[in-house]
Amino acid sequence: MDWLNAVKWDAQGLVPVIAQEQATGDVLMFAWMNREALQKTAALGRAVYFSRSRNKLWFKGEESGHVQQVHDIRLDCDNDVVLLKVSQLGHEPGIACHTGRHSCFYQRHQGGQWVSVDPVLKAPETIYK
Amino acid sequence: MDWLNAVKWDAQGLVPVIAQEQATGDVLMFAWMNREALQKTAALGRAVYFSRSRNKLWFKGEESGHVQQVHDIRLDCDNDVVLLKVSQLGHEPGIACHTGRHSCFYQRHQGGQWVSVDPVLKAPETIYK
Repeated sequence: MDWLNAVKWDAQGLVPVIAQEQATGDVLMFAWMNREALQKTAALGRAVYFSRSRNKLWFKGEESGHVQQVHDIRLDCDNDVVLLKVSQLGHEPGIACHTGRHSCFYQRHQGGQWVSVDPVLKAPETIYK
Repeated sequence: MDWLNAVKWDAQGLVPVIAQEQATGDVLMFAWMNREALQKTAALGRAVYFSRSRNKLWFKGEESGHVQQVHDIRLDCDNDVVLLKVSQLGHEPGIACHTGRHSCFYQRHQGGQWVSVDPVLKAPETIYK
């Protein structure tokens, strides 16, 4: 598991992860992985993160069904950030955000404010039962 | 400066930032900003990060000339990650990485190893004099 040792894990044993939709190039979300999460992501071909709030592995889509199929795993020049190229499954178009939006990055800076500019594709209360 | 107060700064007063090339959708790099860096980024329309290693503001391109023109600033659903849409200036195609590559994410996981799959576009020793 040399490739896992090559990653510079932070003081909490985590690495930041960017998930990008392969087909569109859209940046969908940002999360964290520990060593086990990255190992499982590679082994399963689906995104497994580490939830800092719940302090455990988070199999993306385990509740929502919005699984991320992983096509490509990249590591940055400093070996301390991971980039995933994914297909966002379970809804068309894909829903990566817990708010029911395509991407978590739906707040745009304009006129000195953050403005929500992307639509909710599915009501969260129908995603999480 | 309500929009700056809306950001959930971490214990070090920082927020993670993803820079994405507007024209191609390529994820170029990952860095950090403090409050002043984000304020200057918005005011100047160019990326200003906070260098954790040098503990000071980092005007991207200040040494290399590889400035990032900022078109769009996004905030995620938890208000704790920023996404920039940029044009990577100073070289064609753009060079965001200190290794002289287009993107920092040039190491690909394949066959249980990290393999460098993207070319060096300009030798670093000719970028940083």
